[in-house]
Amino acid sequence: MAGNTFGHLFRFTSWGESHGPAIGCVVDGAPPRLPISEADIQVWLDKRRPGTSRFVTQRQEPDTVKILSGVFEGVTTGTPISMLIENVDQRSRDYGEVKDQFRPGHADYTYLAKYGVRDYRGGGRQSARETAVRVAAGAIARKVLGDGVSIRGAVVQIGPHKVDRDRWDWEAIADNPFWCPDRQAAQRWEGYLDEVRKAGSSVGAVIEVTASGVPVGLGAPIYDKLDSDIARALMSINAVKGVEIGDGFAAAALSGEQNADEMRMADGKAVFLSNHAGGILGGISTGQDIVARMAVKPTSSILTPVRSIDRFGKEVELRTKGRHDPCVGLRAAPVAEAMIACVLADHLLRHRAQCGG
Amino acid sequence: MAGNTFGHLFRFTSWGESHGPAIGCVVDGAPPRLPISEADIQVWLDKRRPGTSRFVTQRQEPDTVKILSGVFEGVTTGTPISMLIENVDQRSRDYGEVKDQFRPGHADYTYLAKYGVRDYRGGGRQSARETAVRVAAGAIARKVLGDGVSIRGAVVQIGPHKVDRDRWDWEAIADNPFWCPDRQAAQRWEGYLDEVRKAGSSVGAVIEVTASGVPVGLGAPIYDKLDSDIARALMSINAVKGVEIGDGFAAAALSGEQNADEMRMADGKAVFLSNHAGGILGGISTGQDIVARMAVKPTSSILTPVRSIDRFGKEVELRTKGRHDPCVGLRAAPVAEAMIACVLADHLLRHRAQCGG
Amino acid sequence: MAGNTFGHLFRFTSWGESHGPAIGCVVDGAPPRLPISEADIQVWLDKRRPGTSRFVTQRQEPDTVKILSGVFEGVTTGTPISMLIENVDQRSRDYGEVKDQFRPGHADYTYLAKYGVRDYRGGGRQSARETAVRVAAGAIARKVLGDGVSIRGAVVQIGPHKVDRDRWDWEAIADNPFWCPDRQAAQRWEGYLDEVRKAGSSVGAVIEVTASGVPVGLGAPIYDKLDSDIARALMSINAVKGVEIGDGFAAAALSGEQNADEMRMADGKAVFLSNHAGGILGGISTGQDIVARMAVKPTSSILTPVRSIDRFGKEVELRTKGRHDPCVGLRAAPVAEAMIACVLADHLLRHRAQCGG
Amino acid sequence: MAGNTFGHLFRFTSWGESHGPAIGCVVDGAPPRLPISEADIQVWLDKRRPGTSRFVTQRQEPDTVKILSGVFEGVTTGTPISMLIENVDQRSRDYGEVKDQFRPGHADYTYLAKYGVRDYRGGGRQSARETAVRVAAGAIARKVLGDGVSIRGAVVQIGPHKVDRDRWDWEAIADNPFWCPDRQAAQRWEGYLDEVRKAGSSVGAVIEVTASGVPVGLGAPIYDKLDSDIARALMSINAVKGVEIGDGFAAAALSGEQNADEMRMADGKAVFLSNHAGGILGGISTGQDIVARMAVKPTSSILTPVRSIDRFGKEVELRTKGRHDPCVGLRAAPVAEAMIACVLADHLLRHRAQCGG
Repeated sequence: MAGNTFGHLFRFTSWGESHGPAIGCVVDGAPPRLPISEADIQVWLDKRRPGTSRFVTQRQEPDTVKILSGVFEGVTTGTPISMLIENVDQRSRDYGEVKDQFRPGHADYTYLAKYGVRDYRGGGRQSARETAVRVAAGAIARKVLGDGVSIRGAVVQIGPHKVDRDRWDWEAIADNPFWCPDRQAAQRWEGYLDEVRKAGSSVGAVIEVTASGVPVGLGAPIYDKLDSDIARALMSINAVKGVEIGDGFAAAALSGEQNADEMRMADGKAVFLSNHAGGILGGISTGQDIVARMAVKPTSSILTPVRSIDRFGKEVELRTKGRHDPCVGLRAAPVAEAMIACVLADHLLRHRAQCGG
Repeated sequence: MAGNTFGHLFRFTSWGESHGPAIGCVVDGAPPRLPISEADIQVWLDKRRPGTSRFVTQRQEPDTVKILSGVFEGVTTGTPISMLIENVDQRSRDYGEVKDQFRPGHADYTYLAKYGVRDYRGGGRQSARETAVRVAAGAIARKVLGDGVSIRGAVVQIGPHKVDRDRWDWEAIADNPFWCPDRQAAQRWEGYLDEVRKAGSSVGAVIEVTASGVPVGLGAPIYDKLDSDIARALMSINAVKGVEIGDGFAAAALSGEQNADEMRMADGKAVFLSNHAGGILGGISTGQDIVARMAVKPTSSILTPVRSIDRFGKEVELRTKGRHDPCVGLRAAPVAEAMIACVLADHLLRHRAQCGG
Repeated sequence: MAGNTFGHLFRFTSWGESHGPAIGCVVDGAPPRLPISEADIQVWLDKRRPGTSRFVTQRQEPDTVKILSGVFEGVTTGTPISMLIENVDQRSRDYGEVKDQFRPGHADYTYLAKYGVRDYRGGGRQSARETAVRVAAGAIARKVLGDGVSIRGAVVQIGPHKVDRDRWDWEAIADNPFWCPDRQAAQRWEGYLDEVRKAGSSVGAVIEVTASGVPVGLGAPIYDKLDSDIARALMSINAVKGVEIGDGFAAAALSGEQNADEMRMADGKAVFLSNHAGGILGGISTGQDIVARMAVKPTSSILTPVRSIDRFGKEVELRTKGRHDPCVGLRAAPVAEAMIACVLADHLLRHRAQCGG
Repeated sequence: MAGNTFGHLFRFTSWGESHGPAIGCVVDGAPPRLPISEADIQVWLDKRRPGTSRFVTQRQEPDTVKILSGVFEGVTTGTPISMLIENVDQRSRDYGEVKDQFRPGHADYTYLAKYGVRDYRGGGRQSARETAVRVAAGAIARKVLGDGVSIRGAVVQIGPHKVDRDRWDWEAIADNPFWCPDRQAAQRWEGYLDEVRKAGSSVGAVIEVTASGVPVGLGAPIYDKLDSDIARALMSINAVKGVEIGDGFAAAALSGEQNADEMRMADGKAVFLSNHAGGILGGISTGQDIVARMAVKPTSSILTPVRSIDRFGKEVELRTKGRHDPCVGLRAAPVAEAMIACVLADHLLRHRAQCGG
């Protein structure tokens, strides 16, 4: 109930603070006999790793994952898989006033109000560093889903700048540091983000994840709808303030005629003629692509001084020194992918339990 | 795991189909000695009740709630509270082709694909009728939260038409059938919706819920963040396709300077100078108003024929006859309020368990 | 968390007090397309029904079950199955001092201490009446398990009198009001229990349940072992004070040589040469019969006055008037069967989720 | 659902195999600001440690615990507490036939049947080594319960030899390697167990745990009764085959008069005149001592050859070489204590959530 476990049948429990000795998670419920190695997990962690471009935090973390249990002779055994990632770049230092001050837009104030104590070093438990273990868990979820399911994220907006969907190219993502599927947009974003970075400012972003190959029938229709669980999963990522499925908020402005995903038969199979629904009807997957988006707010860790208070009720002004992250959304795409993989793996097992297959 | 239970410490389990003998729910975990009566619950059900204006479904349901357990001599006893609402207006009829055809935008296709069987009468379990029991559970959640917490919903957009926030008046909501807080907008909406209704078309909507008086400290920070649970709760309501907290998707376009909720001291207390965050930081309530929005899609049950298939793989055209709901979002506001009440009550108990107070 | 839900994938949530309008439960997670009717459930309820012999409580309850949801055209739909049993024989009366006094051996004192309020009418929620809904849930669990699994209970001891295992005859059980598998013992028990009844005294009992046909591989090995879950299930039945699997406490006095269940091959299949383990190794079913026993204490509702106190701290003497139950264990066998059916159905679905098949 | 998490509000998730690099657990839900250090946990681990006398397994394991998260500046922070214990004495060796053969009385056969794969090194996940992490979690549970609650275990029977309750002396336990509270019995047991050991045989045991100082009111009365959860907790310990509360199975042979725990007032407080119930009525603690017992079977790892089969269906004879454990029950007392501590801590938080206080 303290909220550090995600999922039901495929579940993981995470632990660790930004500047403790390590972070990690325990994945429970993975089916036995799945081939898995540390390298299978590392490949996804490397995509999320900090310090890979000038547009993300300069913290140097190799993020090397170790599997401590649950895998024997190269396959899962059905027992819990414990994974551990050491914290290397902890930059031990004098925290001075930081430890008593509340950074606006961060959880410093609320953690202290809730618990009466907080690990102030680098944000402690609230640090986005925790998302590394989500990516590790997601790597195992992908194994559970199998090769038939593909989950890909893209950044579709930074600040006010959106991609052009007509230029969408999944291949482009690997070629720029922004997870941008639009090569022209990626070029413009580079200049824009350099300005933001130099100004010591920050901007928000929108990430879109597409899951292809998801079989029809996943989802528990009333309170654990597939879209409900995706919404919860994405909203749990640091700095996320909004989640959409399919047409999302735009659907509110449509008419029933515009929004209807009509059906026909093709080659003896049911097909949808559009996908306003984002691959989910009544909380259950339709077999179409599942499309989800999330909005990431800009961080308040900026050069411009912001007004705040400290734990003693003294008014202060804060100004971020040292590492600076102009667009925290840039590193959120692999985390969003991982969370959706975990939701789908969970629902795959749930569906198998109740409905077989 | 079949998804009919919502919440952890304050939880409810719901059951019932649109055209079965009744629907109901069991609320478990409510603290003992809370004064409660059927009338306390009925008042909220009456707000959601169908057939109250020409803009919502004409199904006639008194939605009278009976308490079958858990309340003794006017107070809760700490044991489960079973509530039952009879289905009165079931309009028994020949379902003809309807029982084999898939209505676009509904879960007919996915239910059958998942379960291999479905109760086709009025949508069965997927019917929005199920949301009545959410409202009943929410009424008890409000008792758990106490009078200090106020949760109010409003429709802020129908189709492309938004309210003007400068004209926001909570009192206005009771004076129009649209849950609209802007009296001028309400007038315009009436004409607009009459057109939609006469055309046999439908439109989407955006609902905003504000929870005031929520104490600081509620929320389990990592995967059960308060905003995660709100997102899940709202996304689980029929036809919802998007959820936002605070500035939501608009935050993506802001800079860190614009988005920062600065803090000062006032009367010896910490105060925020703005509320872009929507009352939640790091998944924990700040003590400010919690502000959440959800987008409701237009129903595909319209007069214009839409292309679909039936369970035998035959291509068909569907056209809605009989009852027609031009804006299903209009009845979603009390449901959204109720779900947020349940989330808050659950987190209140969770907070009490771990942190006391 | 308030403890009124049992199970995980196959689960039921129960509600109701002894003298409220009704009791009931919601079964969630049952696979779709299982043929089920009220008659299928009633047959099990009739076995538990009070008033069937002079050796059990004389409360007259038809215990007629109604299915309110989740079954359509004779089969389960995968949605929650709500079942309701009306309380008929509530004997409304003046409770007088009873409502303030604590009956020794009952939960009157602890309920009031915990909740600060209690429904004192007939024991309220703590009444064994609640076990009727367990039997109803168990009837559905049996459907989930299928005809290949047979779960049968027997009373093997009342007071100090045990059955002779060499005379064990499952057929005998239907021929006596004691669930006794030993016809000679049953005769002696009749005289013995008549004495107990006339003396206004009470005695304990031991019930043994055997589940045959359980496939190998059910159970989650560490904390949700099959035997752990059976122990919890049986210990949750009113008045149960001990639970054993296989040889149980007798195993403590054995040597490793005596206790070993050796294995051989027969007809190409693994067979065990004995079953000290009671069909479970490492928390996982072996495919042998699962054998579990539970000890039921004698009720303290007796004619001899017993010393107690009331809620105001006044010392009192209590003496049971009216209905009297000389051996509450006699009606526990069908409840024990039902609980084990529910545990097995839950683990069948859990196994299917993780390991397929 | 894979069963590696114990508890609800105070919960721990464990991982690790006997011969993997380490074992560990993540404790979630502990209240913040509890003073705790590795030394606080180590003291309990040292009591369970193998190799401390000739009567227990000779595996040499320092069992040194490391806290990796959740504790900051000497106190808990409310975030998950990750603990890790390295496996030192893994004795890497050629497993030869062992890896294919099923040891009677062990879970070799059932693990392979369930998962289709197993880590055969030293029992893998089914090894009693896993119980070390339960002791670590229990150490934190004790902190949650506070100094007012004392939980003490004793071995009250080995093989057929019981302690004399009139000679019960809690102090004696620290003075013999048997957790025996009867000094005379301890002396006799020494000779007896030496014989068992030299014969390469094994015997069972009964462990009794007493929890003093537990406040009245803990327990969720229907399916999560305090005794149900204790039964589940104890039955989940390796080799346990029976669980009793209070008089347990002996209660079945008592009359209602004999079994009644009468009540009087003393110094203005309710007192019970006996404790047949073992401190629990209706699933809720009474404030008296909670008394629970468990039966541990003798291990089948003995010198006498026992008949078995291997995974290929070949009949074999097995004879334990190397390390040998004449009475596995001897090391179970601290594990039983720990599990009961965890159950009580969980119910303390659950009670606080629903009923305050």
